[in-house]
Order: sequence, then structure tokens, then C-alpha cells
Amino acid sequence: MFVSKKHLLVEWGHCDPAGIVFYPNYLAWFDDCTTALFTNAGMPTRALFRAHAILGVPLVDVRVRFLVPSTFGDELLAESTVTEFRRSSFIIRHQFFKAGALAVEGFETRVWVGTDPANPERMKSRPLPAEVIERLSKASPQLAKRNPERTKRRGRATS
Amino acid sequence: MFVSKKHLLVEWGHCDPAGIVFYPNYLAWFDDCTTALFTNAGMPTRALFRAHAILGVPLVDVRVRFLVPSTFGDELLAESTVTEFRRSSFIIRHQFFKAGALAVEGFETRVWVGTDPANPERMKSRPLPAEVIERLSKASPQLAKRNPERTKRRGRATS
Amino acid sequence: MFVSKKHLLVEWGHCDPAGIVFYPNYLAWFDDCTTALFTNAGMPTRALFRAHAILGVPLVDVRVRFLVPSTFGDELLAESTVTEFRRSSFIIRHQFFKAGALAVEGFETRVWVGTDPANPERMKSRPLPAEVIERLSKASPQLAKRNPERTKRRGRATS
Amino acid sequence: MFVSKKHLLVEWGHCDPAGIVFYPNYLAWFDDCTTALFTNAGMPTRALFRAHAILGVPLVDVRVRFLVPSTFGDELLAESTVTEFRRSSFIIRHQFFKAGALAVEGFETRVWVGTDPANPERMKSRPLPAEVIERLSKASPQLAKRNPERTKRRGRATS
Repeated sequence: MFVSKKHLLVEWGHCDPAGIVFYPNYLAWFDDCTTALFTNAGMPTRALFRAHAILGVPLVDVRVRFLVPSTFGDELLAESTVTEFRRSSFIIRHQFFKAGALAVEGFETRVWVGTDPANPERMKSRPLPAEVIERLSKASPQLAKRNPERTKRRGRATS
Repeated sequence: MFVSKKHLLVEWGHCDPAGIVFYPNYLAWFDDCTTALFTNAGMPTRALFRAHAILGVPLVDVRVRFLVPSTFGDELLAESTVTEFRRSSFIIRHQFFKAGALAVEGFETRVWVGTDPANPERMKSRPLPAEVIERLSKASPQLAKRNPERTKRRGRATS
Repeated sequence: MFVSKKHLLVEWGHCDPAGIVFYPNYLAWFDDCTTALFTNAGMPTRALFRAHAILGVPLVDVRVRFLVPSTFGDELLAESTVTEFRRSSFIIRHQFFKAGALAVEGFETRVWVGTDPANPERMKSRPLPAEVIERLSKASPQLAKRNPERTKRRGRATS
Repeated sequence: MFVSKKHLLVEWGHCDPAGIVFYPNYLAWFDDCTTALFTNAGMPTRALFRAHAILGVPLVDVRVRFLVPSTFGDELLAESTVTEFRRSSFIIRHQFFKAGALAVEGFETRVWVGTDPANPERMKSRPLPAEVIERLSKASPQLAKRNPERTKRRGRATS
């Protein structure tokens, strides 16, 4: 499967009075990482949604385990990949690593939806296009030679 | 002018590691209070925007003074009113009171915008409808007999 | 078990470009509802955390099903209750109803944590106080007059 | 003055039903950019706040002009710099550029605050340390090669 990576910086405003990330922010990052997964697999979401005339890929289910808390100033490495394809839905796994240790792991079940032709006020699921499945299923070449890339990319993030 | 009121409860997740409201949340409440201003003046925004075929009332300018910090568990009383009408824009003042003292005061300049007929990807300002100005300008009857209303309304908020 | 209720209003700023609630906002509401659960059971969190010298009740696991999308202007009724107590953790179920229909259901596993005496930079779980369990376990008097069907659903196992 | 830069990516979840950034998110980015300003000037905030025993640098005033709307997928370049130092407060200007054009400009007035010795529940302003002023005032070497037009604009008074 294709694996998308994204670097996240925990900011002051992401944290609560206990000094750790207010947990819904992890799920906002999951959503950002899902966008990055499509983009990094060669399908920027804006163009993709328009090309297929869909509204988006809303969630129907999410499960998350929080293993290690993070605080402002922490850098997280996110890795996102599809773990299952169904007819019109798919499961994305997001793993956030902090200093190499798994800190948060989540599974999003998302549906490929467009406007319901029978009622433009409603959404209706549609079959996942073969091209989308194919691109999300391909091997990630950059994972082969992991370490040197990792160091280089991290240097680019802050500018 | 019509004055709209709204009760706000500061939650744990609104606060930062210093234990006080992370300030962008005040501006999210300004936006909620602008919606409440229209709704309380008899113009629920969803129906209003649809009826006038506009996209919304985006901001062009905002100014805020933060006078008293608030923390989780605090209750704020918001009072919102238009202080100026221009051709296609208007200024809304939001005042948040904590235990009777002014804690935050902001001024939003918003524009009445629709899709640009020349380019559906862009927004274009439109003249403010007279009906909208009229409803936002009318006196607020409930402000006359303030105290009994206030007590009653506060009791409804939490259920 | 004690059931806490809270009314939620979906605002413009809670919604995404598809016009429906951006899903992490549901989890921010779960957190607010957990605070309300403690408060409505007679234990305002600020005083409670201070009295027991704990940092808070961070999450270790959350599972959510999204059944019906909501949009700005929608009103949701939230019902929150503990479905299981363990030594230092507990599971809270949140159900959001829209016009009587279950729209979102989530289960949060939270831990009662304080500062680790061995390392003030770290958190450490502590046994749930008996008084807290007792208050969250008591029957909700206002639910007595309810429809028995609903009461039965409420008692269902958590998965 | 030292100028700090940061790249921002507008995500789906930052946008509202009109498809543009929900405006309080710009102010959350201002806060992130203020953190980056300190960090890029050699003073990571966590260590800085601890070294000086302060609670943080809360806002007392913010003014923002929104010139060009942005949508998901847009990349913004943020430039942040102090435009004025007072005894215990300072003004930071944030400019967000989209494809080279100024899209958002804001001025934050922040205060250097610690716990009030007379009442640990309250915050109290403290004089800005000379070292902090010095680091934020130093020239940014990477800006030397820039277009002089831009440099001039940057020196403009804040209002």
C-alpha cells in the first residue's frame, strides 16, 4: 500500500490546561493527513473531487488509541495508509510517531459520496473508482531508503 | 439598534496551557454571535442567505480588545449589535461580559457577498438589502425589562 | 447510571466546505459533554480536579460512529453516561440526537491522572475515588418518566 | 527587526461552507507564527517561558485586515516581526502572502506576564527582558538580498 508521511508541529494553541494536546486536534490532523495521502498519491483532493463530481469523503467511523501525550514544541511524524477497500468505503490508518515511538493510532472509515440525484440536499455513496484504489494501493518507493530522506525532509519543514 | 444576546460557557478545550481561553476562540464566538444576531432579529442565516442568493457575510476587518481573561467554567454574556451600515458592508460590535464586567470587545466589518456573475469562482459584494438594515436597526424590546428576562433565559441554557 | 444532557447548536464555523460538521468538532463536544456529566452529577471539574489534586481525565481510547450528518442551524441533544468503571479508568458513552434520531455515538475511555510523584513532568493514573463512582452511578431522577424503550437502549453493553 | 517566516497550508477543515478559511483560524496561525518568531530568533518559547518564570505572552489587542480569501489547498507564506516595543508589551505584525500578494495582515499587542505574587490565581505583566528585545530586534541576514521595495513596506508604522 501507498504510505503518505506528514510532519506535524504541536503548537501552544493545540494544548489544553493540562499542557497536552486537546485530543480533537489529533482528529483534525487525521483529516489533514487523509488529504495529504490523496495528494501524495498523485490526486490533489480539490481536483479529484471535482473530476469525479463528489462532495468529499466524510467519515462513518473512527477509532483512536492515545498512547503517549504530546505537548507544545513536540514534533510528530504521521504515516497514513489505506488498510482496507470496500465497495464505496475505505479504512485509513494514521500513526503518529514521537521520537520514534507510536504516540497515537487511528482508523478512519470514509465513504466516497456525491449529491443524491433524487435529492440535492442529501449525500449518497458512490463506488470507489478503480483508478483511486490503484493509486492508493501502489508501493511507496520512498519507503525503501528511509533514513536519508527523513533527515532531509525534516530540515525543509520550518524553512 | 437591535441587540442580540447569547450565553457562552468556557470549556476546558477552549483554554491553553496558561489555563485561559486561547484567543482565536473568542473570534469563533464572534462569528456565532453574528449568526445569532441575524437569527434573533428574525432572519435565520441559512434561509436568509438562500433567499438573497448570497454566499455569506465574510469579514474584511476585525479589531479586538481583551480586558479580562477567562478560564474553563466561566460563563460569558455576549451582546452584539450593528454600529454602522455602509453600502454593502456593516460593522458589528460584540461585547462579552463576565460577572457584569466587560471582558472582551470586538468590532467586525463584514460584507454582503454573492458569487461574481463574471467568474463563479470568485465572490463579489452586493448592496445590503433595505429589509436587512431595517430589521437590524429596530429597537430591542427585551432590553427594556432586562432583569427578569435575563434570569429566565439563563435558566434555559443548560437544561 | 446518571445521564447528563446538553443542548448543542451547530454553527457555521463548525462546518466544512461540504456544508456538514467537520468531524473533530463532535469530539470537542464529547469533551464538553464529559465536563457537563461531572458538573451535572454535582462535581464541577475545576473544583473536583483541585480537590483530588489531579491534572484531569485524559483519553486513552475513543470510538465514534457517524450516522446522520448535521449542518449549521441544526440543534443536537447530547446524552452522556458512564457505561463501565475500571480501577483508574472509565468509559463514557455520548449519544447525539437530531430531531429524535441518533446522529452520532461515541465511547470515550478516560483515565483519572495526577502528576507522577517520581517525575513531575509526567502523568500517572490513580484509582477512581469511590465518591466519584457513586455520583456517576446514581439514577437520574428526570429519566424516570421516560419511555421504557429508550431506557433499555441506554443500558446496552458498550462493545 | 528580525523577520520570521513560516509556510502554512490551508486544509479542508480550516474552511467553512462558503469554501474559504473560517477566519478565527487566521488568528490561530498568528499565535503559531508568534511562537515561530521567538523560536526562529533563538528563543524556543517553552524554555524561554520557564527561564523567565512567566506564564506566556497573552494578547491585549489584535487588529486584522482580510484582503484576499483563501481556500483548501492554498499555500500561504507568513512573515512576522515586532513593530514596536513598550515596557512590558510589544506589537507583532503578521503578513500572510498568497502567490506573492498580501492576503491577510494582523497586528497583535502582547504582554509579558507572570503569576501575580500577591495572588497566584491572577496574572501580572512584567518588564520585557533586554535580551528578548535584543534578539527580536536584530537584522535577519536572509533578508539582505531582498527587493528594497519590500523592505520599505516592512518598516511602515503600525497605526
